[in-house]
Amino acid sequence: MIVVLAGGVGAARFLQGVVQVIPEEQITVIVNTGDDRDFYGLRVSPDIDIVMYTLAGLVNEAQGWGIRGDTYATMQQLTAYGNENWFMLGDRDLATHIHRTNLLRQGKTPSEIAEEVRQRLGLQLRILPMSDQPITTHIQTPAGLLHFQEYMVKRHCSDEVQDIVFVGAREAKPAPGVLDALKQAEAILIAPSNPLVSIGSILAVPGIHDVLHETSGMIVAVSPIVGGAPIKGPADKLMRGMKIDVSAVGVARCYRDFLDIMVIDEQDSHLAETIEDLGIPTIVTNTIMSNSATKAALARHVLQAAGIHV
Amino acid sequence: MIVVLAGGVGAARFLQGVVQVIPEEQITVIVNTGDDRDFYGLRVSPDIDIVMYTLAGLVNEAQGWGIRGDTYATMQQLTAYGNENWFMLGDRDLATHIHRTNLLRQGKTPSEIAEEVRQRLGLQLRILPMSDQPITTHIQTPAGLLHFQEYMVKRHCSDEVQDIVFVGAREAKPAPGVLDALKQAEAILIAPSNPLVSIGSILAVPGIHDVLHETSGMIVAVSPIVGGAPIKGPADKLMRGMKIDVSAVGVARCYRDFLDIMVIDEQDSHLAETIEDLGIPTIVTNTIMSNSATKAALARHVLQAAGIHV
Repeated sequence: MIVVLAGGVGAARFLQGVVQVIPEEQITVIVNTGDDRDFYGLRVSPDIDIVMYTLAGLVNEAQGWGIRGDTYATMQQLTAYGNENWFMLGDRDLATHIHRTNLLRQGKTPSEIAEEVRQRLGLQLRILPMSDQPITTHIQTPAGLLHFQEYMVKRHCSDEVQDIVFVGAREAKPAPGVLDALKQAEAILIAPSNPLVSIGSILAVPGIHDVLHETSGMIVAVSPIVGGAPIKGPADKLMRGMKIDVSAVGVARCYRDFLDIMVIDEQDSHLAETIEDLGIPTIVTNTIMSNSATKAALARHVLQAAGIHV
Repeated sequence: MIVVLAGGVGAARFLQGVVQVIPEEQITVIVNTGDDRDFYGLRVSPDIDIVMYTLAGLVNEAQGWGIRGDTYATMQQLTAYGNENWFMLGDRDLATHIHRTNLLRQGKTPSEIAEEVRQRLGLQLRILPMSDQPITTHIQTPAGLLHFQEYMVKRHCSDEVQDIVFVGAREAKPAPGVLDALKQAEAILIAPSNPLVSIGSILAVPGIHDVLHETSGMIVAVSPIVGGAPIKGPADKLMRGMKIDVSAVGVARCYRDFLDIMVIDEQDSHLAETIEDLGIPTIVTNTIMSNSATKAALARHVLQAAGIHV
């Protein structure tokens, strides 16, 4: 069994490679839910949806989120009713949020709902939210403590980052199955996701960080920072705000106390030595996932680095 | 001030005439909410929406409900998630239900929400749900007690009607403004709506029936039954089930204890004498609202019958 710690777009693309080289049934994905937020009273769980839509072949590949060819009639009318419209939700996409919210109100947990939706979308891998309790990533800025979506989508990452706060983390527990999956994993792959918010929120769930120290499975991370900048998203601003070097070295430092192997891009080969100096063996390969073949090749490299025969 | 008691399609079309002959600001509409139901956890209030969409020029005229040109992407995806799909909700229409549900969860009442949506749609008349408490119309059938939408839309009115039950009516109160509007009205017009369910549910709200006895305003009803059949909807099946003659006479009998004047169609002129024998003066005119002019003409006739100068 392989476990992948996942954020949104980068993780989803990485998983498109992983499912090409090992059977879906052998994969458990633990997904960040720190970015979840209610819009119009509907629970939106962006990273869960990005991972599912991508693997189900539904995703809008160009933007990396949402459903391909989706329309925006509902949001237009919601806007006419005076609602905010800074977070785009397509009509088909909204069905997911309506369905999820309805099941939550009926007493189902986020992990039960993820399991149900996964089955409906015909996916074979296991998809676990990091926690069934709400943990919401907030960014401390001069303008106040902002929900991550407000910081990123509404205010376009324009505020100075002073701190990252995972509201609710202390009271939360890992979702059922999360700790066991990590304990029993032959390998734990950290997808090329934002180390501070996407993976950081997963690490903030009580118990998960500890188990990463204890597990016998190899832990391999792929850097989402290539050539000094993130492939997608605001990792650079967050890392800079948190005084972390915006580089594969900075990413390695985030994970250094439990990481077995770091995978960095060829463009960053000159950083390999610095990372190895941290005591982390480093593999240099092409991490730019431009097509199906490069995704599979990256997954194969990462799994082989973790000692998995593929 | 004129008050109109309203159900769905027939009432909405009647109101299209009324707004042509008296200023919108002078009209209060009290709308049936007995057909309300939650779908996918969203509160749908069909008659409120039909009235608002129609008067705002948004309605799908052909079907009499929903929004013209609406699409069904959200429902298709909800169906893919295994949800029932017997009640069609378009994408723009769903915005109304999402917005309403969100405001309800924030503690707003149905009448506050109707007021807010009315303003957003640019309507000048006052639209009051009959009650802010849930009253749900159920049909007693050999298959059990069915929610009205289940009886009508899901099971296509195929069950034998044994009784009509307004669940929750006893504990409900008229919405704020309803009793005052009825007391102060110069005229109360009963739209050509289903007398047993649409108007019947309004009459079932404690206090409304009594005020119709006390009010000094003239009460004028338009028969929704023409030539022995309803213009739209299942009134015939319900009336037959309740052993009420499916005719303008049967409608007049439903209202006889408070009705001042009955308006019936030219096709039913032979019934005028029978209705007058009940002690109800009867006006015969064209009640078939086939276009804007016939709607206005009917409204003018009805208002003049009520002693309103138009």
